[in-house]
Amino acid sequence: MNRSNMPKAGFIDPSGNNADAVHDLAEDVLDQLLEQLEGAEDRSPLPTDSTAPAVTIPESSQTHDDLLDDLETIVDGSMNPAHPGYIGHMDTMPTTVSVLGDLVASAVNNNMLSVEMSPVFSELEVQVTETIAGEFDLGPDAGGVLTSGGSLANLHALSVARNQTFDIHEGGLAGLDREPVLFASEVAHTSLQKAAMLLGLGTDAVVAVETDDHSRMEPGSLAKAIKRTERNGRAPFCVVATAGTTTTGNIDPLPAIHDVADDHDLWFHVDAAYGGALVFSDAEGDRLDGIEAADSVTFNPQKWCYVAKTCAMALFVDADVLQEEFRIGAPYMRGDDAIPNLGEVSVQGTRRAEILKLWLTLQHLGRDGLEQLIDESYRLTATVRDRVLEHDALELASEPEMNIVCFRAAPEWCPPAERDDLNSRLQQVLLSEHDIFVSLPTYRDSRWLRVVLLNPFTGTETIGRLFDGIDAFLNAEETE
Amino acid sequence: MNRSNMPKAGFIDPSGNNADAVHDLAEDVLDQLLEQLEGAEDRSPLPTDSTAPAVTIPESSQTHDDLLDDLETIVDGSMNPAHPGYIGHMDTMPTTVSVLGDLVASAVNNNMLSVEMSPVFSELEVQVTETIAGEFDLGPDAGGVLTSGGSLANLHALSVARNQTFDIHEGGLAGLDREPVLFASEVAHTSLQKAAMLLGLGTDAVVAVETDDHSRMEPGSLAKAIKRTERNGRAPFCVVATAGTTTTGNIDPLPAIHDVADDHDLWFHVDAAYGGALVFSDAEGDRLDGIEAADSVTFNPQKWCYVAKTCAMALFVDADVLQEEFRIGAPYMRGDDAIPNLGEVSVQGTRRAEILKLWLTLQHLGRDGLEQLIDESYRLTATVRDRVLEHDALELASEPEMNIVCFRAAPEWCPPAERDDLNSRLQQVLLSEHDIFVSLPTYRDSRWLRVVLLNPFTGTETIGRLFDGIDAFLNAEETE
Repeated sequence: MNRSNMPKAGFIDPSGNNADAVHDLAEDVLDQLLEQLEGAEDRSPLPTDSTAPAVTIPESSQTHDDLLDDLETIVDGSMNPAHPGYIGHMDTMPTTVSVLGDLVASAVNNNMLSVEMSPVFSELEVQVTETIAGEFDLGPDAGGVLTSGGSLANLHALSVARNQTFDIHEGGLAGLDREPVLFASEVAHTSLQKAAMLLGLGTDAVVAVETDDHSRMEPGSLAKAIKRTERNGRAPFCVVATAGTTTTGNIDPLPAIHDVADDHDLWFHVDAAYGGALVFSDAEGDRLDGIEAADSVTFNPQKWCYVAKTCAMALFVDADVLQEEFRIGAPYMRGDDAIPNLGEVSVQGTRRAEILKLWLTLQHLGRDGLEQLIDESYRLTATVRDRVLEHDALELASEPEMNIVCFRAAPEWCPPAERDDLNSRLQQVLLSEHDIFVSLPTYRDSRWLRVVLLNPFTGTETIGRLFDGIDAFLNAEETE
Repeated sequence: MNRSNMPKAGFIDPSGNNADAVHDLAEDVLDQLLEQLEGAEDRSPLPTDSTAPAVTIPESSQTHDDLLDDLETIVDGSMNPAHPGYIGHMDTMPTTVSVLGDLVASAVNNNMLSVEMSPVFSELEVQVTETIAGEFDLGPDAGGVLTSGGSLANLHALSVARNQTFDIHEGGLAGLDREPVLFASEVAHTSLQKAAMLLGLGTDAVVAVETDDHSRMEPGSLAKAIKRTERNGRAPFCVVATAGTTTTGNIDPLPAIHDVADDHDLWFHVDAAYGGALVFSDAEGDRLDGIEAADSVTFNPQKWCYVAKTCAMALFVDADVLQEEFRIGAPYMRGDDAIPNLGEVSVQGTRRAEILKLWLTLQHLGRDGLEQLIDESYRLTATVRDRVLEHDALELASEPEMNIVCFRAAPEWCPPAERDDLNSRLQQVLLSEHDIFVSLPTYRDSRWLRVVLLNPFTGTETIGRLFDGIDAFLNAEETE
């Protein structure tokens, strides 16, 4: 074909005719990227003065050098979770092989929509999701699908729960005389509200259940809430327990929550987006006890399993439920007896092979490697927790159960009404003067500092810097 | 930390301490991958005997060499859209920079959930979606968000249309006394049924409107269908026109469809997932005339703009509608005045920076490069169409309007009832004996051969091989 306007390395010629140009570009991008990542500690954990390049659609091809310059600027200005001082969100630096897995997945550009379009990857996704469902003891019929992020996994699970309960796959909700409702703790993830909105239930359909002092759903309050909604003529269909709350990393008491759900014959979903990773730790795995009774589970390897985002999954105790309660057939696709066309049974259609980076991460780290990462996170968390408790001017938001410590400065000399401002300033100073990024969530109507100890390169030195920074700030503020 | 169980290149040390091990692994993966891609023509366009590796979770780290061997096998067994004989689906080989963009996006692992977690990328996404909305002439207030695939873009657009019409964001659909319905042609994409199911409308809410002989929605039939549903007490809220149908690549008459939607005050959504790319061609762009009147548009650069999947977007003529009719706030995120937290206004939450590969592709190909790719596709399409029409034993499903030709063998000597089988066998033979992969959709209750002329390396030689293969097959079948 005529390729007069095409840069030489625009596509990778399948006959190898432009191999030199492609190698030049690919190697230059890789070298520059690795150099930036290998110096990630020299950049801020969170650049604050970055702007995007101005040009969006140029008339003709930009040069190789311009592309590299722009890429360098973009990477320099981006969030930098590889910095050991980045301890602010559930956002990790990725495993090396998950980055390379994404490179390969994009290059072959297979499509999880159908088996025909992703022959190896569809099989791999079915195998791996079944294996992980097995790790959670979900039983011999369990399985699931990957989703591009945990919000979609929750959406998927709740859609199946709704469809099975109300039989509205074809007819919709408008004819129902009772409003469907689901139950989740008051600190559950907002993706449940989003799912309820999308599913036509409305955000009010998510009934917030009270939690104890450590952000764990109270089973007694759940039982009361269910009865109250029934008395009000609404139709309970699902209970969502959280294993790893977003702000404090706490775990709802799964067995007790399940008992209440079971008493009322409700679908039991466990949002283990964050905490599901504990299944790989012998020392910490029993914190998930009770998850085996779930009807569905959300689990995001993109968090504590260090897989580059996105990589999440919705698991179902009975994988056939996807055929019975969810499936939308597509006439332009061929079927396969053993492996379903995954696009027909998941919320997405065309989807990239995100299974590859998960599978590669499992191969490269192994179960031992994952376990060590998780167990080390716990050791570091204990250090941070102890230092908060020992500190007169700091208070803990809840008892840590994972690798998240949520706390705030509450010195006696600072009036309670001014403490939100104090903590906001402290967060800024930690970033600007100490290269430590902690996040600043709103929790129980106050501002807190939140530390997420995911980064494998964060160590006691970083923790020392964090508390030195806090002390220096508080001393300066007190004497002002 | 203790890293005794960690492979040396497990993570990229932010101080550069394992640079040698990381470079070794990354360069070996890249070299092997490029070698396979530069020989893509030597593999089948669609391997049929591939299986996934058996091991899912090993106890400990697999060696560098084992990983490379497994990756080689996986790539060899995957769908091979880079082969010039791969002309079967809307699945492209990707631009070189979109593959490298995914490498970079995974490496920095930013999160489109919030501005804080993706400072450059959030800004870039807002800029690029606004620019592309401008290309469609959607006006000064238009904008949108990226979604991981077109099904989610349609879901997003329909959710906003539904929420705006019925005000059910909080309260849900259960209280409505009339069933909401939307209208789309009988050959529109099944993601609309999936969206209707997910949205609680039910699949029956998608009213199928008749099409003409060339798969284009009939405006008169649309008007009648709307009136009929109103008489039946249902509540029309949206019309979806398709610019690029999945099976035959036809385009609904957008201005006439818009007029009908406007007469009934219905939301007008254009699913230009495939055809939106025509906006970059001066010669073919008017085929999209009328799209400027859309309330929302789905557009997938992952198809005819050659961006590695996934890369799709939902555009809205008034971007503020996302704040007013969709937004779900998250208490753990900080806001920004200029750039919204994109996770609050889109169906996904955590999301990778898929904007980077789109932006890089626009920079590397330029408008000129994209235009040339599209215009060349049209020239090749005309060749295929003409050869089908000249051939006594072939018939065309519809007049091509894009780069898709859907046709079938219908020789006189083969009874109509046996023609589905004949075409199925022909499809198999083209793949196994001629290295040509065409797809085999069901369309108007019959099996057809479908050619999608996306691959920039597909040329007249490939087309010659396709028709030679067809002739050889039909001659052999007739004389049997």
